[in-house]
Amino acid sequence: MDKFVSIQLDRNSPEPLYVQIYEEIVRLIKEGVLLPGEKLPPIRKLAANLKVNTVTIVNAYKLLEKEGYAVSRVGSGTFIQSHLKESADLPVKNDSELEIDKIRFDFATASVPPEYFPVEIFKSSIIRVLDRDGGYAFAYNESPGFLPLRQSLEDFLYEEYKIKASRDNIHVVSGAQQGIDIISKALLDYGDTVFVESPTYPGAVDAFKSRGAKIVEITLRDDGIDMEELLSKIRSKPPKLFYTMPNFQNPTGISYSEQKKKELIALSKKFGFYILEDDHMNDLYYSEKPLPLKAYDEENRVFYIKSFSKILMPGLRLGFLLVPSDFSEIIAEVKYFSDIASSGLNQRVLDLMIREKSFYDHLTKIRRIYLEKWEIMTDSLKKHLPSPVTFSVPKGGLFYWLCLPEGFYSMNLYAGVIKKGIFIMPGDYFYPDQKPSPCFRLSIAQVPKEMINEGIEYLSHAIREFLKEFSFIPIKKSNYSPLL
Amino acid sequence: MDKFVSIQLDRNSPEPLYVQIYEEIVRLIKEGVLLPGEKLPPIRKLAANLKVNTVTIVNAYKLLEKEGYAVSRVGSGTFIQSHLKESADLPVKNDSELEIDKIRFDFATASVPPEYFPVEIFKSSIIRVLDRDGGYAFAYNESPGFLPLRQSLEDFLYEEYKIKASRDNIHVVSGAQQGIDIISKALLDYGDTVFVESPTYPGAVDAFKSRGAKIVEITLRDDGIDMEELLSKIRSKPPKLFYTMPNFQNPTGISYSEQKKKELIALSKKFGFYILEDDHMNDLYYSEKPLPLKAYDEENRVFYIKSFSKILMPGLRLGFLLVPSDFSEIIAEVKYFSDIASSGLNQRVLDLMIREKSFYDHLTKIRRIYLEKWEIMTDSLKKHLPSPVTFSVPKGGLFYWLCLPEGFYSMNLYAGVIKKGIFIMPGDYFYPDQKPSPCFRLSIAQVPKEMINEGIEYLSHAIREFLKEFSFIPIKKSNYSPLL
Repeated sequence: MDKFVSIQLDRNSPEPLYVQIYEEIVRLIKEGVLLPGEKLPPIRKLAANLKVNTVTIVNAYKLLEKEGYAVSRVGSGTFIQSHLKESADLPVKNDSELEIDKIRFDFATASVPPEYFPVEIFKSSIIRVLDRDGGYAFAYNESPGFLPLRQSLEDFLYEEYKIKASRDNIHVVSGAQQGIDIISKALLDYGDTVFVESPTYPGAVDAFKSRGAKIVEITLRDDGIDMEELLSKIRSKPPKLFYTMPNFQNPTGISYSEQKKKELIALSKKFGFYILEDDHMNDLYYSEKPLPLKAYDEENRVFYIKSFSKILMPGLRLGFLLVPSDFSEIIAEVKYFSDIASSGLNQRVLDLMIREKSFYDHLTKIRRIYLEKWEIMTDSLKKHLPSPVTFSVPKGGLFYWLCLPEGFYSMNLYAGVIKKGIFIMPGDYFYPDQKPSPCFRLSIAQVPKEMINEGIEYLSHAIREFLKEFSFIPIKKSNYSPLL
Repeated sequence: MDKFVSIQLDRNSPEPLYVQIYEEIVRLIKEGVLLPGEKLPPIRKLAANLKVNTVTIVNAYKLLEKEGYAVSRVGSGTFIQSHLKESADLPVKNDSELEIDKIRFDFATASVPPEYFPVEIFKSSIIRVLDRDGGYAFAYNESPGFLPLRQSLEDFLYEEYKIKASRDNIHVVSGAQQGIDIISKALLDYGDTVFVESPTYPGAVDAFKSRGAKIVEITLRDDGIDMEELLSKIRSKPPKLFYTMPNFQNPTGISYSEQKKKELIALSKKFGFYILEDDHMNDLYYSEKPLPLKAYDEENRVFYIKSFSKILMPGLRLGFLLVPSDFSEIIAEVKYFSDIASSGLNQRVLDLMIREKSFYDHLTKIRRIYLEKWEIMTDSLKKHLPSPVTFSVPKGGLFYWLCLPEGFYSMNLYAGVIKKGIFIMPGDYFYPDQKPSPCFRLSIAQVPKEMINEGIEYLSHAIREFLKEFSFIPIKKSNYSPLL
């Protein structure tokens, strides 16, 4: 990556970041820093290096390709063109000259758009908290969180999921990611093994790896993980921790069957491992309300993490943990040396919103919005998607997981459709080793409901073209799991 | 600690926590769980276990002593009384019956009282941010922080300290403690050595230990660390990191001389270690404005952490890092998997306060308040403190470090004066091994200026009594450092 240290980005510039990156790479080519035939860095690595979204790098690489500076080879990466075209020396000025459309259909982004946030409720609540508590709203809090909020969360768990939690075991954290990090610090030592679903959320994997943990993937099936594979890998070496999103999983949208939930708890007891349940949006159910794994946890093996980022707003940076009581002490200590405590002001506002039920009203509103989008999306996929592409309908949440036939890679499809203004999330991102995947995630978080059908029509058309274009690649049907 | 798991505290009860803990321990004695002659857990350990302040435990133990359930032995701890007095069986009902005064003079607490917080400025700023940005104030932020704020901080560093920083190397964090944790994750692996000042801030030591680091203490002198000791310990084994508060240190109030600052930078280059500078309140200077170590850092060896908890308000949970540019990428990654990003709303409000200069006005106001307290405190200590007690006058900040003659322990003095309503911070707390210390910290953060002189008079009187009471202990004068 040393060759890329001189890249300078101006995030205030009206010029899109991907164009800036494109221009910088062109400069490096012209300066002879990057050589013909040289491989460009993996997308995620350069993205982390430049602190930009992976998609920005993909766009920059696509532009390099389009302008003749680079060539992408299926499954092996992007390379500097061996023989640069003369025309490629022309400087690139701006977006419109590049004839690349803006994103019209954003099926990639997972975060809820700001217009759904309860800003007015928050504003009136924060003013009341400031008038009520004055400076005390800004004093240090106890590490486990503002006590009245923990009481409210205890009530919330019972009211929503019939979980009888004690506020003593509830710990307020600055979002689910911090929850994962804190539990990792409390539980994991160098060399410990963590089982994760395959595919899974990469931010969790990073936190586990930071503790020196070894990651083992367990294939996800339509009703939860593959229990045979799980058992076989447990017998080989039981993990310290199993990380799971049992309802509306990210990225697949899959929910565990009740039976698998119970089996998982039983196995955790039998083999002495703990379970980290990441509840990122159980509340966005569209038919039956699913129970968290924690609701089945009579053995006290489950660390439960609840995020408010999807159902309320991400910028609040609040979530909470419900932990086995034996761990409450160490969790509070780890929270203390991690960041002392989460913002007391935001905790007080959230507490007020839960107590006064505006929180529940907002949940209902958000659920209604996404139920409508989910219905449109499901119908549209069933209607337009070409048959070689598989998907299953999630029972809640924001994500659909689509798989191309074997031999096709979603990263290539991604690169093709982004030019048409359609933004999808390649599956590679959700595997710890970033392996090329035929699958990709579609999200209904950002796209307006009026545009879903049109977007899926466009995407389906593009997929048909893509499948034709790459039809020389033989498709093996045997041993094909729609999730790998 | 297993014997203490049944202790239940009700933090909403009007009964003080220390009385509740006292009652619970009495219950454990009566139930035969705790046995006559048995040693009670170390104060800090039980405090962490019960998630209360160490002082609460000290109070509980003192009450056990007073009521005849326990006896404390200088330097070795508190033990269950071998022969329990009959009268000790009477249940304790409430605070007044115990004849223990409330805290009248709080010289222990380090946090600034809520009445100094700029609540009205914050409130009007937050309303403007919400009106201006709407839901975007609650969207996900980039991990390194809200870009306009990082620009404001870049300006702040230049304006206040003539540090030419690039916003690209500025990372917004959720308070200084998180800054320490993030830098620890980015730099430290199992078995690495970290040098710390002795005494030092224990929250930092906990973060280093969580990474499996070995802690080595370097004695602090009146003008910074002991350079001979430092050099000798470096030659034995250079550290990966040296953790320092070069100005108005916590707990001693000591500031490094300019020469020692320069020597430290030179040594870090020569021996290849990094420096973690914890700037917890450089802005509270009372004569000359001191430069941070970072201002001398031409070698790019210093990770600089700025806290806003003391100078603005702790509940905001905001601070920032300025890191050597080579580390900017990894710091952003670590921040991401630690908690994604700090509260975007609070960042936007702080940005507005810096841009509109109300932040600087507040700094000036706070500095004036504490300058006045510092003058009263300094005069009062000089006037009243008995001569065997040593202290030096800090050039800024909130802390004075007082040392009893050798052979006397501050924890015993603490236990004596708390009964008179005077609250001091025993030195033990600031040593990684919690060793009994003759020194203690006085803070001017909480005590109102009108009460400083009276409090110091009372304290001085109590110290005289204490020195008389324990005068049978021989005082060795040789090799005595006022900081150990």
